[in-house]
Amino acid sequence: MKEYILLIDTVDAKGLVYNISKVLFANNLNIEQNAEYVDNDSNKFFMRSVISGDVNPNMLLKELKEVLPENSTIKLNKKTKKEIVILATKESHVLGDLLIRYIDGELDANIKAVIANHEYLRDLVEKFNIPFHCVSAENMEREAHEDLVIEQIKEYNPELIVLAKYMRILTPKFIKEFPQQVLNIHHSFLPAFIGANPYKQAHHRGVKIIGATAHYVTDDLDEGPIIAQDVVRVDHTFSWQDMRRAGRNVEKVVLSNALQLLLEDKVFVFGNKTVIL
Amino acid sequence: MKEYILLIDTVDAKGLVYNISKVLFANNLNIEQNAEYVDNDSNKFFMRSVISGDVNPNMLLKELKEVLPENSTIKLNKKTKKEIVILATKESHVLGDLLIRYIDGELDANIKAVIANHEYLRDLVEKFNIPFHCVSAENMEREAHEDLVIEQIKEYNPELIVLAKYMRILTPKFIKEFPQQVLNIHHSFLPAFIGANPYKQAHHRGVKIIGATAHYVTDDLDEGPIIAQDVVRVDHTFSWQDMRRAGRNVEKVVLSNALQLLLEDKVFVFGNKTVIL
Amino acid sequence: MKEYILLIDTVDAKGLVYNISKVLFANNLNIEQNAEYVDNDSNKFFMRSVISGDVNPNMLLKELKEVLPENSTIKLNKKTKKEIVILATKESHVLGDLLIRYIDGELDANIKAVIANHEYLRDLVEKFNIPFHCVSAENMEREAHEDLVIEQIKEYNPELIVLAKYMRILTPKFIKEFPQQVLNIHHSFLPAFIGANPYKQAHHRGVKIIGATAHYVTDDLDEGPIIAQDVVRVDHTFSWQDMRRAGRNVEKVVLSNALQLLLEDKVFVFGNKTVIL
Amino acid sequence: MKEYILLIDTVDAKGLVYNISKVLFANNLNIEQNAEYVDNDSNKFFMRSVISGDVNPNMLLKELKEVLPENSTIKLNKKTKKEIVILATKESHVLGDLLIRYIDGELDANIKAVIANHEYLRDLVEKFNIPFHCVSAENMEREAHEDLVIEQIKEYNPELIVLAKYMRILTPKFIKEFPQQVLNIHHSFLPAFIGANPYKQAHHRGVKIIGATAHYVTDDLDEGPIIAQDVVRVDHTFSWQDMRRAGRNVEKVVLSNALQLLLEDKVFVFGNKTVIL
Repeated sequence: MKEYILLIDTVDAKGLVYNISKVLFANNLNIEQNAEYVDNDSNKFFMRSVISGDVNPNMLLKELKEVLPENSTIKLNKKTKKEIVILATKESHVLGDLLIRYIDGELDANIKAVIANHEYLRDLVEKFNIPFHCVSAENMEREAHEDLVIEQIKEYNPELIVLAKYMRILTPKFIKEFPQQVLNIHHSFLPAFIGANPYKQAHHRGVKIIGATAHYVTDDLDEGPIIAQDVVRVDHTFSWQDMRRAGRNVEKVVLSNALQLLLEDKVFVFGNKTVIL
Repeated sequence: MKEYILLIDTVDAKGLVYNISKVLFANNLNIEQNAEYVDNDSNKFFMRSVISGDVNPNMLLKELKEVLPENSTIKLNKKTKKEIVILATKESHVLGDLLIRYIDGELDANIKAVIANHEYLRDLVEKFNIPFHCVSAENMEREAHEDLVIEQIKEYNPELIVLAKYMRILTPKFIKEFPQQVLNIHHSFLPAFIGANPYKQAHHRGVKIIGATAHYVTDDLDEGPIIAQDVVRVDHTFSWQDMRRAGRNVEKVVLSNALQLLLEDKVFVFGNKTVIL
Repeated sequence: MKEYILLIDTVDAKGLVYNISKVLFANNLNIEQNAEYVDNDSNKFFMRSVISGDVNPNMLLKELKEVLPENSTIKLNKKTKKEIVILATKESHVLGDLLIRYIDGELDANIKAVIANHEYLRDLVEKFNIPFHCVSAENMEREAHEDLVIEQIKEYNPELIVLAKYMRILTPKFIKEFPQQVLNIHHSFLPAFIGANPYKQAHHRGVKIIGATAHYVTDDLDEGPIIAQDVVRVDHTFSWQDMRRAGRNVEKVVLSNALQLLLEDKVFVFGNKTVIL
Repeated sequence: MKEYILLIDTVDAKGLVYNISKVLFANNLNIEQNAEYVDNDSNKFFMRSVISGDVNPNMLLKELKEVLPENSTIKLNKKTKKEIVILATKESHVLGDLLIRYIDGELDANIKAVIANHEYLRDLVEKFNIPFHCVSAENMEREAHEDLVIEQIKEYNPELIVLAKYMRILTPKFIKEFPQQVLNIHHSFLPAFIGANPYKQAHHRGVKIIGATAHYVTDDLDEGPIIAQDVVRVDHTFSWQDMRRAGRNVEKVVLSNALQLLLEDKVFVFGNKTVIL
């Protein structure tokens, strides 16, 4: 029996759960998992259900549309591995972590390709029999280079694009091409230490905790909806290199946790925030 | 408009959400918050809803009973402050924390009384104009002393009994008198270091992390369902007294977090585990 | 036998440890605890020793001065309880926590007085038989009010001033009066969310972690050397009030941990950072 | 100029630091880093110094021996990359993490070989051009198999042996062959959930936190000195497989942090505990 993930994002209204569950019940579907959240401030309703049964997806979507408020977002995703493309630059800690999970079978995704703006990571990626494309940015305008990257990504038509320490700033055009599809790990505990050399900044400020933030990329650099965060303790004996080492451990774990949530369709974007169901 | 908390604990079945939401919809109730969880291993269904509207509680319970499987547990609690009694011995860190929250208005509870087996804490408690009863255990059998404590508690008919470092072992009789009403904070990170002097044990073992566990008290000492846990880092420079100091911070925060969950009716007991909705 | 805490802060130089230990050895002193740290970037040397024996403090300081580089900072503090004054406004969670620790004997300090700019906390403080002074700021210029507060503090001549959620901005004059004596708990995880309503800011940003920072107060608001930090996890189900509740737990624990470090003379200020020995 | 790490482990005595620093000063050595710890309970003294200069190691050791108490342990290690051998079975998360760090240049070690009791990990290891040896245990007595493993390890004469999820119990003979050289990551938060299937145990117990413990291996299974620990939060929605996934993240980070401490000679064993300097 096939499994689907039903995702509903709409305004809250009396009888919403009743109306949705009536449709599911009438279609003789099993609800394997179900989670809802109402945001009372904004009167928004979010639902994620894992359902199984003999479904005619189009019919079901049509029936749900009829009982839901206008402008509701309704998705019915087959429960399968998503296809992803990874962008990177030179650092291998996040990428390497994804590769190890991949061959482990622990990543619910197919890595279609790794695209980088340097050659450094080719050896590592090709060890794992994954296509590697270097799209050099040397002597190019930002926009022209980005166009090449977009073109390369589109060849693989991925559902998600994972920035695994991709150190280039994306333009609004990129975001427009792949809306709500781009996951980034920020080398810092947002909203602090935005910008270059965050570990030097943190070291200079004498912080006792550093962290990492995984977030959707939006037009507003480093300001997209936060999906996952974590921290690690440091102290005065840490050089900034030690802080970077500690921070990298957090980065790779936070990115992988956030990616897992996306692969399971558990993340709703809501204003500049996320609801995780 | 009155608010109620509806709690349902039953076996999972097709159409459950549909049937429940039909009843709520038919009664014209607003669902302010809603959370469900299905445990697939055991086929159990849990639901917590905050509802508002003109309710006839008995009628509603009757209607819900009709659409739910036999032996379902259905509760409809008015959303009010619960009444609690605190048991203590000599240590004041957990008790003091509850008292400060209480006068702060941060505790959604009325503290009816504090009962202790020593006089030490009388001064502190009476500063806050809360009745204090010392039920000394000196020269008494465990059962006889406990009977006096039970009697004293019953005068206040509390919904919850909070063991704020009450250092005496409770007999099954006590648990039977107050089933699923007794919250304890364990001076350790269960299931490790059960027993006396946990901080000396932890120090001797050279652990790098210590913690605390808030749990329901059951017949099986220190083995009741866990509600909340937290930890704190320690190192070789910590004497066992330093570990105790660090541990006490964790104890009071974990106990207060767990109590908050109970006061909001968010905890379902399920086998020897809890589901927090 | 008396115990002293020896604190040395100087430029690093070859033979430093040798020269210091020679003096201590020649004076027949026991070294109960010893910790040193060399910051290689800045070539600074820090040492904290707990020593016991028959000491003539002035003689010892003189002998140490002779073997140390010019402009070294050398302190020899008797190991006793420090005297502190607490400043507060209306919130009681941090103050209350200090009071409970105080009567517990867990705070290595004598609380000489609590000074507030409102009357709200008088009842709580006087329960503990501690002098409470309300220095109202109503209808006063900032400087004039602060002068009154400074005057009131000086009556007690405290070694440390603890801002337990004192919600007024201090002027450089205040800092000049009490250099490196003022400890603050920042209602946020610095350097993020500086300013008013940090929990609303954090809620609006949709963060998954909130924290608190204890730091020395300097002229540069909220930018003084960080002494301790901690965090707690939150999620989309947290209202900003829930975040505040969670944040308050962190605030009081972080402040109390930082204060403990100060009371044990374990904190060296170093540029805008701290070294904790 | 060569750098050395000087490690001293002895009984505490008056003048110890003076005597040691006198020798270092007389030899005209620079002290790059220095850390000491005195355990007052046991009267033990530990020191770790990074020193540089023109050293005759044997002379220096001789001079230090003369001024230190009898039976002192004094080591002078050249500051170089240590050689390690990794033992594994089938799981790749810890091993993979080490391999990625290795090619990153982030691991201060040379991985001489990976030895496993199954063939599963050969492909992964050989991608990184590291010798892989499968020493199958099939149809063999524990002792006979272990003898083969010991023999294979000895060919590489490593300074450290890292058990990266090596799922076989070691006999006292193994420990005797490689005393204080074997690092293990325990799939649990010791001392809880010792034994098989810790994540099932943790899931069954309904814990809210799981963790991992890196420790030296001693004769007493899972009871060796703890080097590093960490935890991660879980809740009722985690299946035991989810707990395992979360736990694996902790395992690999804790193991790598502990290994880093060993590679920098920062760990002293002391009874069944560790001092980290």
